[in-house]
Amino acid sequence: MSFAALLLVDIWLTGGDGSGDNSLPVKTKLRLDCSWFITLQLISRIPELGIKKPFTEVIRANIGDAQAMGQQPITFLRQVMALCTYPNLLDSPSFPEDAKKRARRLLQACGGNSLGSYSASQGVNCIREDVAAYITRRDGGVPADPDNIYLTTGASDGISTILKILVSGGGKSRTGVMIPIPQYPLYSAVISELDAIQVNYYLDEENCWALNVNELRRAVQEAKDHCDPKVLCIINPGNPTGQVQSRKCIEDVIHFAWEEKLFLMADEVYQDNVYSPDCKFHSFKKVLYEMGPEYSSNVELASFHSTSKGYMGECGYRGGYMEVINLHPEIKGQLVKLLSVRLCPPVSGQAAMDIVVNPPVPGEESFELFHREKESVLGNLAKKAKLTEDLFNQVPGIHCNPLQGAMYAFPRIFIPSKAVEAAQAHKMAPDMFYCMKLLEETGICVVPGSGFGQREGTYHFRMTILPPVEKLKTVLQKVKDFHIKFLEKYA
Amino acid sequence: MSFAALLLVDIWLTGGDGSGDNSLPVKTKLRLDCSWFITLQLISRIPELGIKKPFTEVIRANIGDAQAMGQQPITFLRQVMALCTYPNLLDSPSFPEDAKKRARRLLQACGGNSLGSYSASQGVNCIREDVAAYITRRDGGVPADPDNIYLTTGASDGISTILKILVSGGGKSRTGVMIPIPQYPLYSAVISELDAIQVNYYLDEENCWALNVNELRRAVQEAKDHCDPKVLCIINPGNPTGQVQSRKCIEDVIHFAWEEKLFLMADEVYQDNVYSPDCKFHSFKKVLYEMGPEYSSNVELASFHSTSKGYMGECGYRGGYMEVINLHPEIKGQLVKLLSVRLCPPVSGQAAMDIVVNPPVPGEESFELFHREKESVLGNLAKKAKLTEDLFNQVPGIHCNPLQGAMYAFPRIFIPSKAVEAAQAHKMAPDMFYCMKLLEETGICVVPGSGFGQREGTYHFRMTILPPVEKLKTVLQKVKDFHIKFLEKYA
Ligand SMILES: Cc1ncc(COP(=O)(O)O)c(C=O)c1O
Ligand SMILES: Cc1ncc(COP(=O)(O)O)c(C=O)c1O
Repeated sequence: MSFAALLLVDIWLTGGDGSGDNSLPVKTKLRLDCSWFITLQLISRIPELGIKKPFTEVIRANIGDAQAMGQQPITFLRQVMALCTYPNLLDSPSFPEDAKKRARRLLQACGGNSLGSYSASQGVNCIREDVAAYITRRDGGVPADPDNIYLTTGASDGISTILKILVSGGGKSRTGVMIPIPQYPLYSAVISELDAIQVNYYLDEENCWALNVNELRRAVQEAKDHCDPKVLCIINPGNPTGQVQSRKCIEDVIHFAWEEKLFLMADEVYQDNVYSPDCKFHSFKKVLYEMGPEYSSNVELASFHSTSKGYMGECGYRGGYMEVINLHPEIKGQLVKLLSVRLCPPVSGQAAMDIVVNPPVPGEESFELFHREKESVLGNLAKKAKLTEDLFNQVPGIHCNPLQGAMYAFPRIFIPSKAVEAAQAHKMAPDMFYCMKLLEETGICVVPGSGFGQREGTYHFRMTILPPVEKLKTVLQKVKDFHIKFLEKYA
Repeated sequence: MSFAALLLVDIWLTGGDGSGDNSLPVKTKLRLDCSWFITLQLISRIPELGIKKPFTEVIRANIGDAQAMGQQPITFLRQVMALCTYPNLLDSPSFPEDAKKRARRLLQACGGNSLGSYSASQGVNCIREDVAAYITRRDGGVPADPDNIYLTTGASDGISTILKILVSGGGKSRTGVMIPIPQYPLYSAVISELDAIQVNYYLDEENCWALNVNELRRAVQEAKDHCDPKVLCIINPGNPTGQVQSRKCIEDVIHFAWEEKLFLMADEVYQDNVYSPDCKFHSFKKVLYEMGPEYSSNVELASFHSTSKGYMGECGYRGGYMEVINLHPEIKGQLVKLLSVRLCPPVSGQAAMDIVVNPPVPGEESFELFHREKESVLGNLAKKAKLTEDLFNQVPGIHCNPLQGAMYAFPRIFIPSKAVEAAQAHKMAPDMFYCMKLLEETGICVVPGSGFGQREGTYHFRMTILPPVEKLKTVLQKVKDFHIKFLEKYA
């Protein structure tokens, strides 16, 4: 069997489109997006498939996992974490004083002075205070209340928890959740898990993937026929699309949410990942506040952050927070109850989040190193964002919008009709077919656009820009060569 | 306002019985158990309520959180974790070689050799292998397959994930989930979240809280009228009831599950916490296997373990695993998809789990210290279990079954009818009223039996045996004094 054939068997084994089989002993109604999942699965199986391949190394450009691609942890963060983990180290001369100070403070806020105790379900108090102070600083003084901060098990947990408390109703009054297309597949998966109604609004590819409020209007109007649209999800900076929303756009969105009484979910996990010199991150919270009390006292908003992205890339610790404002007190009570069922988010992840929101400041011993490490990661990402955009746009049949932020390219690819037919013969989406061929021939793993959603008849893939610069150049060159050969083959 | 009155206001504010108010802007159908939640909430608010109280210290005997009660972490575990967190320490002479060896191996199994990378959704491969080897050792050679092991965010996550994939159907065919009464409130809460049907079976208090299969029969028969009972949850050793099931009882349960085609969920997080000399922990997996292929190839079983309990008490790391056997391959595919949506469990928690299943062995440098620390924790718990049983049984109006395992006493308390009336006047369950008075007068926080469920007309509370011996003695004496005064007051 060929490598590709084996991969296909593997895909088949891991469950097809997941729509479920009624003859199963125990049924489940889960309909998770297929190609996204397959890519995750596939990549983890490659080493097992011990067949001769035309490449020497698999390059996992499929998932935003910085440290897995060789990015080094921020020293200060890990020092504080090590001190908290094994407090004997507080006596060691090899750790800087500012790290020790942070560790002591965190430990004092933990039950029994240990990361090993459960925290309050909402998170360790002093960490929530640090998050609130960070938000206030970030938003130029707009106040944040620690009571509105909830620490979470990565942003994933926060997003699914909020959706869980918002979804209700049956039949035509079932909750509709508006999500961008292309989207980050957590959203469609959780919506499916909760049997909520997914309401798509399309980002404008012709316009650098901008969000257009007219499109939101269209989507909400159409949705009202078959559900009760109550929630509007925004990802800014965008994944997989990499756009950074303008202040004007955010104002428009908030106004729209206010008009339509929608609960706003602002996924801002890439808030530190902005590269285009003419773009700037504006938080929904800040803009909401600046639009005045009519908006800021009424629009319900949850915004999400994470330790996984930014410059720290601490995915494995599963740290995150959400800030929830204007939530009805009774719903807030329900939220805390729901969180308390699973006891608490990982305390080590909470500690990591603390260091992200409370990093060394000028004058502290660790500041210089911290600053250097942070700027090096972000500077490199900015360089790679530009490099990727430029190179893709040199390839005939590929068009790539500017990577304004986040850590992905989502180029549009031309797939010739003969390749579309070949894909259909394999019962695959055309871009899935393309990505499989790319993997098979080059060892480069990317995710097909159909895993995120895209306008009918368009094809894309998502590739991270996380590999180190030199490796990224090789990757881009290989994709280019592959694409040209692919076009020739199916001309 | 009195301290108690303030607490009551607080309870009222945090959401009453949570049955929801139809006039809310966003509705939710969550009906979480009230008194369990209130206790968690209450305790976290006490420091804020700056009123003069008749005690100097609040003693949190309400939650199984060992390190919060002063238990020290196992040194070896934290050494390995610190080395993994900050690998520079691998060069430090102050760490033992066996800890370094473990840390190197764990790091090699992580993407980019870092705890900061996402792991596979099912968990780090080599950790799943270590878990399988541990199970095989624990079960006297009964094989375990790493492919059936899933690492989780604490046992809570495993339990709720499995319930999520098992619940389906509507109306009379909605999935029924059988749980013990008294139960650990995670179960009722998740059942409620999922809109599944809770099917109670009562443990036999007269018989040391043993599980009686006739009671399972009664419960399943009655349930068939209004739901489709598909899942049977067992907690062994029991929380809150502390019983350890006999091998015979487990066999009977497995036979019953086989007859009724029930999916078995065995919550075995207290597998290391057995104190009565005539009790022994038997895993469901082992007994199932030993009952022969008719059972072992057919009965679907998920068993759960955690880093939170045992002798290590690492609650904050949110480590855990589940072993799932005989799961239909398609359902298994769904399970992996579901897990992949939230990316992965915390990698630091996974590493902690590894050390629990792969501790130092005789001949290794750290073995002696590890062994001493472990035996000291478990020896103390055994002593405290006996002490607690004995003391409670000296108090008139309190009856306490032997604490065979786990880490709680669940004594039955006599509440005089005048106190029941007083509670009703406060719209409180009588045992809630009792626990509030106890807290108010002594600073000791325990959870009322109504938070776990109990036979109509009986009253209990749950108290952990985690405080250090001397403090526990004080606590027990205070409860005794309180109880006697309470009986007098409401005579
Ligand atoms: C837009 C977006 N939201 C949420 C997440 C979840 O991140 P985590 O759960 O690791 O914090 C991701 C991860 O890639 C993401 O890209
Ligand atoms: C019986 C039982 N199951 C599960 C859990 C959940 O533990 P964790 O999620 O911390 O592993 C607990 C915690 O007290 C428990 O007592």
